[in-house]
Amino acid sequence: MLRRIRIVLLETQQPRNIGSIARAMKTMGLSQLMLVKPRSFPHKDALDLASGADDVLQQARVVNTLPEAISSCVAVYGASARRRHNPMPELKPRACAEHACALLMQAAEPADVALVFGSEPAGLDNDALLQCQYLLQIPANPAFASLNLAAAVQIICYELRLAAFQASDTPLYQPVHVPAQVDAFESFFQQLLDVSEAMHYFGNKSRSQASAQLRRIFQRAQADSQEIRMLRGWLSQIQFVCKNKP
Amino acid sequence: MLRRIRIVLLETQQPRNIGSIARAMKTMGLSQLMLVKPRSFPHKDALDLASGADDVLQQARVVNTLPEAISSCVAVYGASARRRHNPMPELKPRACAEHACALLMQAAEPADVALVFGSEPAGLDNDALLQCQYLLQIPANPAFASLNLAAAVQIICYELRLAAFQASDTPLYQPVHVPAQVDAFESFFQQLLDVSEAMHYFGNKSRSQASAQLRRIFQRAQADSQEIRMLRGWLSQIQFVCKNKP
Repeated sequence: MLRRIRIVLLETQQPRNIGSIARAMKTMGLSQLMLVKPRSFPHKDALDLASGADDVLQQARVVNTLPEAISSCVAVYGASARRRHNPMPELKPRACAEHACALLMQAAEPADVALVFGSEPAGLDNDALLQCQYLLQIPANPAFASLNLAAAVQIICYELRLAAFQASDTPLYQPVHVPAQVDAFESFFQQLLDVSEAMHYFGNKSRSQASAQLRRIFQRAQADSQEIRMLRGWLSQIQFVCKNKP
Repeated sequence: MLRRIRIVLLETQQPRNIGSIARAMKTMGLSQLMLVKPRSFPHKDALDLASGADDVLQQARVVNTLPEAISSCVAVYGASARRRHNPMPELKPRACAEHACALLMQAAEPADVALVFGSEPAGLDNDALLQCQYLLQIPANPAFASLNLAAAVQIICYELRLAAFQASDTPLYQPVHVPAQVDAFESFFQQLLDVSEAMHYFGNKSRSQASAQLRRIFQRAQADSQEIRMLRGWLSQIQFVCKNKP
């Protein structure tokens, strides 16, 4: 699906930005780059900044007009920091990415969508924006909204990757290991209480309250079985040393 | 809230990247930049690339060690492209941003959180990662995951801005309590190592490996400041009893 998303750059002034954008696209799995009248391309700076995304640059198509770049697309999103008088639907990056991916999923025949970015620093002019059906607006600090062109493309490519893989369905918090079984935890915790007792830790504390607090801390640690063995080894060492102390 | 989020850059090699990061931060409303042993700072290239985010560079703090940079933080997220053997919770940018903003909302006293980025191109080493409680992983094309450093920071700052403005709604991931500041944790952990040493726990184990494992278990427990005091009391009791044993 990501292969059917075109990044269209209008009259880009700095070859460095084209290189950074190729890299940004490739990190997120996009590959279709369309350059409308770039000031200078190919260019060594673009290759330098691509840092290995050379294939994206090699396959980039250079054309003379925006209509050529968006030909046969089913949706065209124009990125702009400014609000426009011309009323058109505005989408933030996440909504834009979800919209584009839903369209690509539902399209009866294989089709492309395009995201269009204007030149630095002017952005999209009104003529270009008239070719777009949607305004793509990246949220930014109103006092300093000047996103670098490649940074803007990076954000939208990131959202496109998430949308394409429907990342919203995957768990937000993924534990990377399996905690020990409760029985193993209980045996460890009993040993912890035994050591606490032997060390007169509870003293004039409320025993049940203090042990409940200890329990919560160690439960939260979600130790796996190897870690439980380690903690038990640590406690055993204390028991051993204190017993054998002269 | 965004003012309480630190971007920590470890041994950044290219001043250009520091400038691009200042710009990326400011576009999203962040302002706290911490530089741990940058190769060259201040630098003309940084200023050039900041494109007007000069104030972020001027206020940037240069320090010698990671612990200084994350001092008094309640959560530390380490960005890494690689999976690690040492198990720690992994968060994608969206979940990480929501987690950080929820923590900042709930903290009883004003506190900071830190996002830590390693040097180009090596990334975070294991020692640095041990100081972090969470692994921040940006989704990327497995065949080409080499995000530019500033691009990675741009993505997370974008998610932080979205999360900060949504934080009044129900966060998707609700931390149950606010962990102790890292400094308090470090003092506790040092005491744990002291006791381990006194008890000859390390014996013929690999000291660094065993202490890294212990560290990971207790970091995962996310003990709050009262619980840290409790654990320290427990350790002190062992020290007291073993010292006074006849």
